[in-house]
Amino acid sequence: MENIRIYDVTARDGLQNEKEIVSTADKRTLIQKLVDAGHKDIEITSFVKPSWIPQLADNATLVRMLPPAPKDVRYWALIPNQRGLDNAIDCGIRNIATFMSASGTHNRKNLNRTQKESLSSLKGVMENAKSEGMQVRAYLSTVFGCPYEGWVDPNTALSLSLDLLDLGADEIALGDTTGMANPNQVREVIALFIKEGIPASKLALHLHDTRGTALANAYAGYMSGIRTFDGSAAGLGGCPYAPGASGNAATEDIMQLFESMGMQTGVNLEKAAEIGLFLEEILGRTLPGRYYKCHKGTIQRSKNTA
Amino acid sequence: MENIRIYDVTARDGLQNEKEIVSTADKRTLIQKLVDAGHKDIEITSFVKPSWIPQLADNATLVRMLPPAPKDVRYWALIPNQRGLDNAIDCGIRNIATFMSASGTHNRKNLNRTQKESLSSLKGVMENAKSEGMQVRAYLSTVFGCPYEGWVDPNTALSLSLDLLDLGADEIALGDTTGMANPNQVREVIALFIKEGIPASKLALHLHDTRGTALANAYAGYMSGIRTFDGSAAGLGGCPYAPGASGNAATEDIMQLFESMGMQTGVNLEKAAEIGLFLEEILGRTLPGRYYKCHKGTIQRSKNTA
Repeated sequence: MENIRIYDVTARDGLQNEKEIVSTADKRTLIQKLVDAGHKDIEITSFVKPSWIPQLADNATLVRMLPPAPKDVRYWALIPNQRGLDNAIDCGIRNIATFMSASGTHNRKNLNRTQKESLSSLKGVMENAKSEGMQVRAYLSTVFGCPYEGWVDPNTALSLSLDLLDLGADEIALGDTTGMANPNQVREVIALFIKEGIPASKLALHLHDTRGTALANAYAGYMSGIRTFDGSAAGLGGCPYAPGASGNAATEDIMQLFESMGMQTGVNLEKAAEIGLFLEEILGRTLPGRYYKCHKGTIQRSKNTA
Repeated sequence: MENIRIYDVTARDGLQNEKEIVSTADKRTLIQKLVDAGHKDIEITSFVKPSWIPQLADNATLVRMLPPAPKDVRYWALIPNQRGLDNAIDCGIRNIATFMSASGTHNRKNLNRTQKESLSSLKGVMENAKSEGMQVRAYLSTVFGCPYEGWVDPNTALSLSLDLLDLGADEIALGDTTGMANPNQVREVIALFIKEGIPASKLALHLHDTRGTALANAYAGYMSGIRTFDGSAAGLGGCPYAPGASGNAATEDIMQLFESMGMQTGVNLEKAAEIGLFLEEILGRTLPGRYYKCHKGTIQRSKNTA
């Protein structure tokens, strides 16, 4: 019985900031390893313009190259607009993630639009996706702080989340895009959302570990009722358009945190950790995650100590 | 008004596992930088046998080389036995830290003694230190898990802590020596201690980040009433006798966590983070801490974003 759901973003948010282009074959291997580890929600690429994120320019090729997702596995793709949705549908994508920002400045710098324009554009995209019977996740970035604006009003994030749910989003992923959240704030923001009628089951936490606080914030989220957490293998990642975004929360560190509290994720921790070693191999460097380093023999595995 | 107290262990727990001997002059510079950053509690060395921890064999030389501690600063030294205490007193040390383990096996492997023998030996050391008017901190290792035994009974840790307080300890530093703690466990153990009459003000948390959980556990400790946290600059450190001990909680990451929650530590965060860069320079490698990397220009400082 899983009581924690992990949403893996390695192949999209993890890779998108890598300057050296990773081969489509390696991406396929990565995604296969994620499936083999037991991941059920895997964000595999983004259908943004190739010039925008060259690393993910092979989106359609990659999706077509993948074996069909096992019955209980959902492949997700990030979608910026109707054209992206069309391209994704052409490749057989059934689950999409949209994105906009809780900070007006970040939204403008990241998307070249006002928040109102974003909502208006997403309305069409979401309606079309829902009419195709697709699952729609909506990322809301910079909920806990913006690199341009600093503090972000939680009521703005709340209001945008209510709008996105009205437009058909099945889930809102609250993004701490540049790792500025603190645990008390996470609890306060989520308490506000729940008080205003958004159940915790409709929310996910997408945390970054820029300042080392991802797991503390994950724990705070857990205490507030959140059960879906985004992670990137070995903490790979960052956002090319967000100064300060460095390192997603490491999937296997989040898993270890919750497993050590007696929770189940449905993903195999040791296999998840091994993906960090695979990434080290293809990227040629050590990554920020902590637990995957257990597999390098420098840290004893917790399994050996119990 | 400080409401979080940081106890810095960089020069002792941080350095003791380093294979390349750091010069005494560099250690002096490190300690001066810790003082300049505003640290009030600085563990500067250990008076264990030189053959045991060669890195700290310059203990007496280092202590004699240091400028006198400013009036509000306490230099601490780790003391294994009466001989260590005598040597420390000879150099002018006024604050000592003793150590033993909550796990019988870890105590035996680390100290070559039963826990009863440790208590008996510490009785004399602590009585003598107290009769000299010294401050005594008592480390209790492996409170939240042991690399040999796995789970450690919190009642054993409680009973040993009560004994150590009876022997004269001013503070018990609860050690998560190999980073096995989880936040729920931290809250349960500290609640037990408080329920059994040990006030949170007599407790410190000494966390390791082996599995990335140090800040989550620090937050859990904070919620339980703990206000003293051990840290090592940039997360340097580990215990040479504890398989799995890799990386102390990073001082500046802990500071940033609590500052972002509106707390004060009395230590300058930016100066604390710069010590990580100094350590990189003298050790020739990147260290595990997150926040100090803000100073490398790869991550935007939170100060710029507020």
